[in-house]
Amino acid sequence: MLNRRKVLLTAGSVAVLGGRAFAQQSTPPGTDPLSAWNEGKAKAAIVEFVDRVTRAGSSQFIPVSERIATFDNDGTLWPENPMPFELAFAVDVSRAQTSSSTSAAGRKTPDRSAKQPRNRKQVIEDLVLATHTGSTIDQFNSSVRNWIESAVHPTFKVPYTALAYQPMLQVLNYLRAYEFKTFIVSGGGATFMRVFAERVYGIPPEQVIGTLFKTKFSMVDDKPVLTILPQIVHVDDRAGKPVAIQQIIGRRPIAAFGNSDGDLEMLQLTTISHRPSLGMIIHHTDGDREWAYDRHPASSGRLSAALDEAPRRGWIIVDMKRDWNTVFKSVT
Amino acid sequence: MLNRRKVLLTAGSVAVLGGRAFAQQSTPPGTDPLSAWNEGKAKAAIVEFVDRVTRAGSSQFIPVSERIATFDNDGTLWPENPMPFELAFAVDVSRAQTSSSTSAAGRKTPDRSAKQPRNRKQVIEDLVLATHTGSTIDQFNSSVRNWIESAVHPTFKVPYTALAYQPMLQVLNYLRAYEFKTFIVSGGGATFMRVFAERVYGIPPEQVIGTLFKTKFSMVDDKPVLTILPQIVHVDDRAGKPVAIQQIIGRRPIAAFGNSDGDLEMLQLTTISHRPSLGMIIHHTDGDREWAYDRHPASSGRLSAALDEAPRRGWIIVDMKRDWNTVFKSVT
Repeated sequence: MLNRRKVLLTAGSVAVLGGRAFAQQSTPPGTDPLSAWNEGKAKAAIVEFVDRVTRAGSSQFIPVSERIATFDNDGTLWPENPMPFELAFAVDVSRAQTSSSTSAAGRKTPDRSAKQPRNRKQVIEDLVLATHTGSTIDQFNSSVRNWIESAVHPTFKVPYTALAYQPMLQVLNYLRAYEFKTFIVSGGGATFMRVFAERVYGIPPEQVIGTLFKTKFSMVDDKPVLTILPQIVHVDDRAGKPVAIQQIIGRRPIAAFGNSDGDLEMLQLTTISHRPSLGMIIHHTDGDREWAYDRHPASSGRLSAALDEAPRRGWIIVDMKRDWNTVFKSVT
Repeated sequence: MLNRRKVLLTAGSVAVLGGRAFAQQSTPPGTDPLSAWNEGKAKAAIVEFVDRVTRAGSSQFIPVSERIATFDNDGTLWPENPMPFELAFAVDVSRAQTSSSTSAAGRKTPDRSAKQPRNRKQVIEDLVLATHTGSTIDQFNSSVRNWIESAVHPTFKVPYTALAYQPMLQVLNYLRAYEFKTFIVSGGGATFMRVFAERVYGIPPEQVIGTLFKTKFSMVDDKPVLTILPQIVHVDDRAGKPVAIQQIIGRRPIAAFGNSDGDLEMLQLTTISHRPSLGMIIHHTDGDREWAYDRHPASSGRLSAALDEAPRRGWIIVDMKRDWNTVFKSVT
């Protein structure tokens, strides 16, 4: 069954791409750079958009310098279940801290005793601050590196980085082949993601935008030290995304990929009164191969307002079950 | 005299660069990519460093992805006298606001009446907030664009952008020819600098780091709008520079260029316990062709602590009078 599908796909891809000079030049015959995508509206939208803005002579040609594409991370480039992977890191580190600490209170948890009861959001924020701050950048990087190299996803029993979505890795490569500059714009911690983003996604640290903690520079023993302080200075979610895009990238993307209401404002910034542009939402519809969720308030990445707004904005909904023939980079 | 000097320079450059394959390949015979630099310790340090970290087989070879170079702007890439150019913009805009306003109080100056007397720093901050905030990003960009295209420097009577330092433009190009990624890391406003940085310096908006104002995203008439609010959220000077480098670039540069104590911490981050690396300080020593200043407290870009620290850190002091045969891009 898999083989038959692959053959059909390859044939279809050649038909779609056959007339385009780039595809003929840069991909070996019969090789589809978007082979993990089934033929359909979503795949066609990507191919058509890239052709329209990059083909010499196109009326909607965009110069290379303006080919900026932004990608959410959790739920867009890799899963966010059974919990966001960075939260899994925080839980693991917190457990290790508690078991190695002589104090039952844990060594870095802020004192919230005066604020009872603590809600879910507060608990998560405390956990994140306790595991992401108070160390130097170098120490934190080591901690993330150790975890990412050893931790195993509870459902798939593979390293977390093996769960990058193969279709999205192909989109990243496809856009870069057409001289797009690809950025991550995620609610995750920028420093956390930078540890693996280059290796897993081909995205260098300076193109990773995320949530930021207050950071202090000081000279210690005549050496420069950057210390992460327990205060969040930028939450890179919702309206925080277009703000960070302005502050850090300094111009509007022409393509944006997200999967939740946290990406709504980034999609608005990218596509409204800004043509040509492409807005795309990964809809988690595959409960067999991944997870199926959208509007439920308890969903990790809740998708409701953005789903409602998609039709009138022309945003493409990617139906993971229907549009992807392969989900993960390393899991079949 | 100019002709003779040029001939001598060209001959010397060929001698320096003659043995290096890259220079032979990428520059026409007899053309020196650093022709605005006189032969001497500073020029040799640049050429030697770049060779050392980029030549295949070098024991200090640095991969392309880590070739990050950061440049201060005011006083490093263009002058900062008789006042920093962005302050000249603010003064001009403020005058235009006052003359076009029916209210003598001015339309956007924050009310500081309760705080008397106002010191110089406060006056400048008020002026900057009044002229840089309260508008949308698009409006501010237009304002800067109009100014930069029409304003004339009071001393040299040319557009401000014609005063980019020719030797530094050559360094930017030279580093980029060896696949360095060049960033501005300046106390100036990021949005202000982005209007001209690509055209003047070849540095795209996403590689311009500067002082940031609080920015708000909202939907107005069903369109996305970014509004600049009257609050500074990041001062990109002194210790703010290494912090922004960490937050935005996410790794340490291997080369940094500055001219004042505002660049001290960036130079420390770049060079201390981080080899190979290059730290360079532009010393304003040419009162005839530009300005001569350093330790005086009233200097625009005061250079004192960094000058003292340079010898033991191995930072190269560029003596503008001695090391540069040409100062400005378009003024002789």
